[in-house]
Amino acid sequence: MSSNKPILAILGGTGKEGPGLAMRWAHAGYKVIIGSRQADKAELTAAELNAKLGIGSVEGMDNASAASRADVCVLTVVQAAHADALSGLVNVLQGKILVDATARVDFRDVRPPELPAAARSAQTILGSGARVVAAFQNVPAHALKKNLGGSIETDVLVCADDLEAAKVVMQLAEDGGMRAFYAGGLDNAVVVEGITGLLISMNKYYGSKTASIAVTGLTPLPGL
Amino acid sequence: MSSNKPILAILGGTGKEGPGLAMRWAHAGYKVIIGSRQADKAELTAAELNAKLGIGSVEGMDNASAASRADVCVLTVVQAAHADALSGLVNVLQGKILVDATARVDFRDVRPPELPAAARSAQTILGSGARVVAAFQNVPAHALKKNLGGSIETDVLVCADDLEAAKVVMQLAEDGGMRAFYAGGLDNAVVVEGITGLLISMNKYYGSKTASIAVTGLTPLPGL
Repeated sequence: MSSNKPILAILGGTGKEGPGLAMRWAHAGYKVIIGSRQADKAELTAAELNAKLGIGSVEGMDNASAASRADVCVLTVVQAAHADALSGLVNVLQGKILVDATARVDFRDVRPPELPAAARSAQTILGSGARVVAAFQNVPAHALKKNLGGSIETDVLVCADDLEAAKVVMQLAEDGGMRAFYAGGLDNAVVVEGITGLLISMNKYYGSKTASIAVTGLTPLPGL
Repeated sequence: MSSNKPILAILGGTGKEGPGLAMRWAHAGYKVIIGSRQADKAELTAAELNAKLGIGSVEGMDNASAASRADVCVLTVVQAAHADALSGLVNVLQGKILVDATARVDFRDVRPPELPAAARSAQTILGSGARVVAAFQNVPAHALKKNLGGSIETDVLVCADDLEAAKVVMQLAEDGGMRAFYAGGLDNAVVVEGITGLLISMNKYYGSKTASIAVTGLTPLPGL
């Protein structure tokens, strides 16, 4: 690393959520690599992000190559692709932080997800050598793309058994304009995953697209 | 009813949460009855609330008597007492609104609750003749007792399959100084129940007792 900022890979980063997160972190000065099952799609997304930001540092490549170059990998695939994506990355993710941002919801059927949490499943697939952190499941993609460099009205609940890894991810959230709170161990992520369904239900009832959750009553700790 | 306000029974209302809710609603002009397995404990709590509020309208009696006199019953027992409490009230709760405020958490072990939601279990026990609504699981008892008549920094997520019953409960929340949002069907309540564990985890990490969740990005509907 040329700075003390970790190099980031956004795996499955050509969908809705990945490019928004990538854009914010690239804008904040992080080296960001877009990963995809298809390298050419990743290259296209990277080129689009570079054009939007007027920079040239975002790269695109296949998921495994992206993961191998990064310190922190953020997985932004849909639930259906979750296990497959991780199964091909077990070796390359050893020793790295894997941020699981999987939204476990079917928009037509918002029933709460059952245990285990997606992030716990990731830990099981990857084994204890990977540092799995659950975060960013509920950040609306459209909010990420607006007001770049400004803050987002969504608080990020970070769940991990590895507190030091959680702190790295909380710093990422803050640098991306989101307030982050440590919300307990990895299993707690199933609740955060379920909040997505609550937000969808609320958006439907209130005719909105912007329902979100904020934490109140807490003072963030110095240095997280 | 002497007004258009429903008569309220707080079942299992001698614990921590029940008296706080009762106090706010009595202060807002509702007729409130405290229910308990032991009528004398309920009478004692009622007398204490009357003394605090300088009124005489709060009554205490056994759970079944309280439920039979009320239009809306709010169950504030702990998870361990939930099924037993409801099993004895099946007949008396037919046709009534049963608000399930059960917090499904062990403070020493905050693992997320599994499906079904406590409120769904309540509906199963009571049958389709009762109108079950899940709400108030995450309102801190200490917050209820402060600033009576003022607002509380906790938003109430209301889950119910019966939308008209949900609206009655949302009005109760608002009259008690809490913003309320309809958050989908009864099964969604398991997520709200799980939020309790997130709040406990956050309070522990941040050295707080007041972590809470607020809804952002929504405009409440006129008349709920």
